[in-house]
Amino acid sequence: MFFEAGNLKKLPRTGWLLRGVSNPESIADHSYRVALITLFLADSLKENGIEIDVERALKIAILHDLAEARITDVPLTAQYYLDKGKAEKKAAMEMFIKAGSLAKEYFRLWREYEEGLSLEGRLVKFADKLEMLIQALEYEQTGFKNLDEFWSALEKLRESEFYEYFKELVEGLARLHKQKL
Amino acid sequence: MFFEAGNLKKLPRTGWLLRGVSNPESIADHSYRVALITLFLADSLKENGIEIDVERALKIAILHDLAEARITDVPLTAQYYLDKGKAEKKAAMEMFIKAGSLAKEYFRLWREYEEGLSLEGRLVKFADKLEMLIQALEYEQTGFKNLDEFWSALEKLRESEFYEYFKELVEGLARLHKQKL
Amino acid sequence: MFFEAGNLKKLPRTGWLLRGVSNPESIADHSYRVALITLFLADSLKENGIEIDVERALKIAILHDLAEARITDVPLTAQYYLDKGKAEKKAAMEMFIKAGSLAKEYFRLWREYEEGLSLEGRLVKFADKLEMLIQALEYEQTGFKNLDEFWSALEKLRESEFYEYFKELVEGLARLHKQKL
Amino acid sequence: MFFEAGNLKKLPRTGWLLRGVSNPESIADHSYRVALITLFLADSLKENGIEIDVERALKIAILHDLAEARITDVPLTAQYYLDKGKAEKKAAMEMFIKAGSLAKEYFRLWREYEEGLSLEGRLVKFADKLEMLIQALEYEQTGFKNLDEFWSALEKLRESEFYEYFKELVEGLARLHKQKL
Amino acid sequence: MFFEAGNLKKLPRTGWLLRGVSNPESIADHSYRVALITLFLADSLKENGIEIDVERALKIAILHDLAEARITDVPLTAQYYLDKGKAEKKAAMEMFIKAGSLAKEYFRLWREYEEGLSLEGRLVKFADKLEMLIQALEYEQTGFKNLDEFWSALEKLRESEFYEYFKELVEGLARLHKQKL
Amino acid sequence: MFFEAGNLKKLPRTGWLLRGVSNPESIADHSYRVALITLFLADSLKENGIEIDVERALKIAILHDLAEARITDVPLTAQYYLDKGKAEKKAAMEMFIKAGSLAKEYFRLWREYEEGLSLEGRLVKFADKLEMLIQALEYEQTGFKNLDEFWSALEKLRESEFYEYFKELVEGLARLHKQKL
Repeated sequence: MFFEAGNLKKLPRTGWLLRGVSNPESIADHSYRVALITLFLADSLKENGIEIDVERALKIAILHDLAEARITDVPLTAQYYLDKGKAEKKAAMEMFIKAGSLAKEYFRLWREYEEGLSLEGRLVKFADKLEMLIQALEYEQTGFKNLDEFWSALEKLRESEFYEYFKELVEGLARLHKQKL
Repeated sequence: MFFEAGNLKKLPRTGWLLRGVSNPESIADHSYRVALITLFLADSLKENGIEIDVERALKIAILHDLAEARITDVPLTAQYYLDKGKAEKKAAMEMFIKAGSLAKEYFRLWREYEEGLSLEGRLVKFADKLEMLIQALEYEQTGFKNLDEFWSALEKLRESEFYEYFKELVEGLARLHKQKL
Repeated sequence: MFFEAGNLKKLPRTGWLLRGVSNPESIADHSYRVALITLFLADSLKENGIEIDVERALKIAILHDLAEARITDVPLTAQYYLDKGKAEKKAAMEMFIKAGSLAKEYFRLWREYEEGLSLEGRLVKFADKLEMLIQALEYEQTGFKNLDEFWSALEKLRESEFYEYFKELVEGLARLHKQKL
Repeated sequence: MFFEAGNLKKLPRTGWLLRGVSNPESIADHSYRVALITLFLADSLKENGIEIDVERALKIAILHDLAEARITDVPLTAQYYLDKGKAEKKAAMEMFIKAGSLAKEYFRLWREYEEGLSLEGRLVKFADKLEMLIQALEYEQTGFKNLDEFWSALEKLRESEFYEYFKELVEGLARLHKQKL
Repeated sequence: MFFEAGNLKKLPRTGWLLRGVSNPESIADHSYRVALITLFLADSLKENGIEIDVERALKIAILHDLAEARITDVPLTAQYYLDKGKAEKKAAMEMFIKAGSLAKEYFRLWREYEEGLSLEGRLVKFADKLEMLIQALEYEQTGFKNLDEFWSALEKLRESEFYEYFKELVEGLARLHKQKL
Repeated sequence: MFFEAGNLKKLPRTGWLLRGVSNPESIADHSYRVALITLFLADSLKENGIEIDVERALKIAILHDLAEARITDVPLTAQYYLDKGKAEKKAAMEMFIKAGSLAKEYFRLWREYEEGLSLEGRLVKFADKLEMLIQALEYEQTGFKNLDEFWSALEKLRESEFYEYFKELVEGLARLHKQKL
């Protein structure tokens, strides 16, 4: 499984690629920062008295994109034509089986993310979107244009159950983005 | 449609990428040489007295990977989990609709390739495999390893109805590949 | 010849490179879309009652930049000092000789493009310029600047015999470019 | 801190770069797989009855290279001339301060890795070396040479307290490396 | 030493990298233009009656960044935490020792640059800053943003003893930069 | 002229590119090491009692490829079809004119290299070939193949008037190359 995870270093995030970022971050690059963000958010929530399992959240963050090692980062334009969720689910299951007795737990964690089954799974989804917007902002600050589409994710962050805790963070991003326009 | 075709320049051929070729050819790079090879093969067949519609073959070569502008080059590891053929068919149909009155013809040509419905469609499939092996050989000559898997396509070329006409070409490739091992 | 055509995948289009696009399209990338555009334009003209040999046009599109596999994409700054046309002509001739009995036809087609000897050759020249402008626009939309020079090609498109048929296409590009300024 | 962590996506791992891998993994790419490996190793140890704090281990894995966002991946050739450890320590401290009330804990975790103060810190060091060798092997399988130096890390893995649990994994790598020579 | 200098071709200038220029110039790229600029400036000064040793200036320009072959281009963010000057001094000394009887002279030249001990050393420092600003301007003209920080070097050029001779050059750059803002 | 020299950073050395090195050194990268090598060789010759003008040699090294900023690195395959020497001569002349009163001297220096008119010019030619072979060896050590052609330059080095002084250097390279085969 460690070898397969190497694919995540080689595979570009296709959303940026298709908008002309010629040498974009890898899936592993993205996953790394999602894990880092999850760490901070989970610890912050805990400090604020929310009952959250930080270990669980970190595991989900690390595993949530692993199936893309087989499926690749199928972009939105393609998801209209094929069932990415179903494909990743099957791939995740088969990859986790290699983890032996841990397989069941890992697949359960993966589903918590994919299907929003737990607080921790939903937090990683929040972190995943946040990470994407931070990256979008960085590309914009570098001079890249044509990335407006991505900012529709802002609305999803604002509707999230975690928004009240990280409002400043989210709106700070929104402000920096506006300054660039 | 011209704009969408621009995606084919940006999207890498994932087969090479996943085997460590860090800056591989684009889908458009590949499609270009498929068209060039098709041109030579079709003209050669005609010279040999085979009845073949060269125009038809060239059109198929140019259109055969166009749906990947939306679907991307989904690698073999993923095709086990999702129905690439079905997705590309639907995407091709929707892309060709933009071509107005020509839509029907183009989609028909696309299917001739995908489903092997015509001599010309099958010839482009032959050229498609040939192109991949030429590229594999070039990467091997550059020093890349780990590309053996691709050479299973040799068998498909040998079983093809066109093999007898281009035997020398196919076996020449096979010989050069062997020298590298 | 198929091996030599591989050079077109490796060689960057120097016009973009010299203006700071650090990882620009290859010559093959460009040639592919020229062929695609030619296909659409030729079929459209035919639908409009123009007598045009689509097969001929496609062959020209596929062959028109082949000599650059030996000469490379010598940029404008250099063409002032050396005779690119003459060099490509000689290189084309020697490359086509490898195509045996087809050599004569292919070289004839190549000259139809280079010297504008036929309707089909001139159409590919039109498609060649159109392709370059579409690419320029895409780079501009990505955030690249400094590409104004390329837009002088607009005038050549407007003076072309094909302008009346594809006026909407050409002016649509011009409009999108203006919005970026 | 999330913005600074973005540097880890942009910065190459200089060890590979200096040996001619022209487009190597980023620091974030590496950190991601270290976290993934840590997850598996820690869970495995726990299954084997070892008392280990998985959450702690994951946090360390995610934080262990963060200081490189300011210091960059200073290669071995440079470490002879400057005190990388001291620089990273100071940078880590200043970066973590931004994390407010969590700063103290994060810096403590960072030191557990750097100074081997805890079982979890040492496990991440083990995972860090393992990750590097997996990557070395992948580059070798791709065709890169000149990476023998890295394999001296093998000895460190063999001397580690964790070797007995992951002997098969380590020796499997060693075997695959030998086959390449 | 020639082999070690090869590192300068592989190592990116980290200042650009950290601001999002994904494929920036190498250290050798930079050093080359510093040498070229030094050549022109030194010859110009001489024509203006200034007593300057052109050979000495050129040698300094060629040698001034050589220690980075071992230390890499440690960015400003890191220099706060480690003593780059001291590290480069030691590395330079050890590299020059390989040059045998020339070692002493070369190390002396290196110090003239680093410590501003001679007119020639200070001229190369002037050329070094000039080169960086020319490159910053070129990236800005390409579309990159976020490079304002670098322009603080303008003040240093204006305070330099060489400013009166190359005022036009410096202010010309400043003007072109302003037009971009 | 400083701006035009920036092209040398952007333009790849096409010889490597055409043999599959996907991200090769730039012309400026090469020129930098030629200047460094020239510095050492010239100083060594002087130490050995040869009368040589080191300043002159360095100037030639820095200027010798400058015309490629307009002409690009036209590869051998193209030089059969076009007169590279003539083109570079004219371009060099026009570029140097911008250097005002220094133009004449610089053009003279350029010709000393191109036409081998002086000891210093011939030394830079020797350094130019040496640099290429060092680079070829480095690429071979990295794993790249297919570079044998370049080693025919070895014979030219052996026939050179400077061979007796740098025999050890040249034969050392030859030996390392043989070990790779």
